[in-house]
Amino acid sequence: MTEVDLVFTRDEFRDRLERTKARMGDAGVDLLVVVDPANMTYLTGFENWGYYTPQALLVALEADEPVLVTRHTERQGALRTTYLKPENIVVYPESYVVRPDIHGMGFVADVIRERFGARRVLGTEDDAICYTPRGHRELLGRLPESRAVDVEQLVNWVRTIKSPAEIQVMREAGLIAQAALGAVVDAIEPGVRECDAAAELHRAMISGTPDLGGAFPMRPSMPAGERTSASHLSWTDRPYRADEPTFIEMGGNRHQYHVGLSRTVYLGNPPEELVRLADVTYDGFQAAVEQIRPGNTCEDVAVAFHAVINKRGQQKATRIGYSLGIGYPTSHWIEQTASLIQGDRTVLQPNMTFHVVLGMWKQDWGYIFSETVAVTETGYETLSTGPQELIVKP
Amino acid sequence: MTEVDLVFTRDEFRDRLERTKARMGDAGVDLLVVVDPANMTYLTGFENWGYYTPQALLVALEADEPVLVTRHTERQGALRTTYLKPENIVVYPESYVVRPDIHGMGFVADVIRERFGARRVLGTEDDAICYTPRGHRELLGRLPESRAVDVEQLVNWVRTIKSPAEIQVMREAGLIAQAALGAVVDAIEPGVRECDAAAELHRAMISGTPDLGGAFPMRPSMPAGERTSASHLSWTDRPYRADEPTFIEMGGNRHQYHVGLSRTVYLGNPPEELVRLADVTYDGFQAAVEQIRPGNTCEDVAVAFHAVINKRGQQKATRIGYSLGIGYPTSHWIEQTASLIQGDRTVLQPNMTFHVVLGMWKQDWGYIFSETVAVTETGYETLSTGPQELIVKP
Repeated sequence: MTEVDLVFTRDEFRDRLERTKARMGDAGVDLLVVVDPANMTYLTGFENWGYYTPQALLVALEADEPVLVTRHTERQGALRTTYLKPENIVVYPESYVVRPDIHGMGFVADVIRERFGARRVLGTEDDAICYTPRGHRELLGRLPESRAVDVEQLVNWVRTIKSPAEIQVMREAGLIAQAALGAVVDAIEPGVRECDAAAELHRAMISGTPDLGGAFPMRPSMPAGERTSASHLSWTDRPYRADEPTFIEMGGNRHQYHVGLSRTVYLGNPPEELVRLADVTYDGFQAAVEQIRPGNTCEDVAVAFHAVINKRGQQKATRIGYSLGIGYPTSHWIEQTASLIQGDRTVLQPNMTFHVVLGMWKQDWGYIFSETVAVTETGYETLSTGPQELIVKP
Repeated sequence: MTEVDLVFTRDEFRDRLERTKARMGDAGVDLLVVVDPANMTYLTGFENWGYYTPQALLVALEADEPVLVTRHTERQGALRTTYLKPENIVVYPESYVVRPDIHGMGFVADVIRERFGARRVLGTEDDAICYTPRGHRELLGRLPESRAVDVEQLVNWVRTIKSPAEIQVMREAGLIAQAALGAVVDAIEPGVRECDAAAELHRAMISGTPDLGGAFPMRPSMPAGERTSASHLSWTDRPYRADEPTFIEMGGNRHQYHVGLSRTVYLGNPPEELVRLADVTYDGFQAAVEQIRPGNTCEDVAVAFHAVINKRGQQKATRIGYSLGIGYPTSHWIEQTASLIQGDRTVLQPNMTFHVVLGMWKQDWGYIFSETVAVTETGYETLSTGPQELIVKP
């Protein structure tokens, strides 16, 4: 008997499946072809790092358990990390991996025909990273009697409201993020190479705390000096210099659930305009999170932020946050559902979780501050603790 | 003037573009829509971590320089890491990011129409992770006068033969991989948590050597005990126990070029069958790499491996390697071109690079050994050095 490590109870997985099926009914589809690796993990527990070859989780309305179709190399991993019965893990052979004439999604089509019949209304995730135009063609080409409906972020929306157990895992991810932030701030000093500070950050993100190990993190952004004007740059080999900013956008990962946390560090006496921007951003953040409570909308949160910073002469062109949770590097930790932006009227509900991320980019420098928050019954809970100012190392 | 860090010369980028255009001519397309993030980096230098929102690099046969279309947040990063003129970096506003009715690839279509005309033969990468069925529809839907041809791995094939400068960068990645392997082997001891050994591995992968910092690595596989029977599992929080194997598949990343390196560690006195498997695998590896020289095919390498191990009672169902180089986590470090497998008749040429990866998975344990090699004028060069045996820590 294979030893299986499930992070959540079977009841919880059953509930996730039922809520997914309810949405399938609403969307008028009877067989969902889940390809987003985070959605697959959500529904089964799958530790899902083989997503670079085609795979799908088939959720039929009439079936008690989904069927996972993946490359043969993933079978043992699926047996050891999901509740799926062995007969519900179907694998394709190596010959599918390197051939221009056949494709894993064609194999998925054959499994659908055999297990569930050829005449189905398929729900497909047409904008999920990992799902390619060719994969879509190969699937539908072998199921001409079926019809496909783009269900968009159907499972992602189910994921958007967390269970108490998921909130607990995210609190753990927050503790890991907090510890890692401390480690990297300690490491940043004039003369230290940026890569050596990044190395300490990664050590700490994965070592976690004495009680909680970290999983593989999302790639941090960690530019210094003028490169802080760009949103997604990495560290380099250069040593830190006195009188320059470094921004750190990173997160803790516990059981594939991520909690984002960002701060800016200044080595030396920070310029007045940076201090002022940090201050304005913090006030905007406070105004924003004060709007986080059930019944308010995502838009309310964004509007409150912009009102505060605009009054003080600052602008921000991007959304100020998004729903997050399970993540793989394909779409990072972003759930691709609710965004904290004007125009998003999603109503906040308890146990939604948001990365409130305030990147303020100027022509040749930048400032970042972020926290991850959970919506509670009456307001919000911050999933990490610690100082929220610009970090100054004189 | 923005400070730009290019890893390669402008001449080298020009050569890459010319070789791409030559293949475009052969494929009968006059405008290539590159969406694979590694292909975009290859052609421009772009440090490309915003791939979770739609973007494309447009290569027109008649244009001297490609045009990058991406989200506005990526503009500063593109200015600071590519040779592209500012007017050839076109960005879409935030309103495209969270809207179900408009899409970044629709914006790309509008840029094509405006810059290059609406009547084109488009080359699209229809099986590139990051390119979705919806994105494809949005692109073509706004360019009804154009026609699209799936160019498959056109740019990936250009990437397959490295320049001398790329080989040098990969040698550096090999040094980083070697240092990181030493660090993780040192850390693995009974009683040490798996996550703490993984933390040391990551510290070393990013710290690199005193002369060479590492970039963000591909996620290592690092299971212990029975979990070594699965190909792609991670570390856990559990402490290592005496008398169990750990396998480590990891790599060094230098300037986004990866070199894979894998070893198996046994804590204690290894069982006879593990020692025998390690020995057979090593002999198979030697037989395989002896076939690596210009003029031989990928198949020749695989056949030599299987001949040796089959004679000694072992089987391996998967390819024994693949071409690698620039990588992002979407498709990992795999170039998705040549594979070392029976049936792949790709002829080896100097400066191709392969990850020769020999994962030997049994029912409840496994063994892995890998090296990255470059094809030379007369044979091969291993890009890392160090012992190639099963690593035994008594």
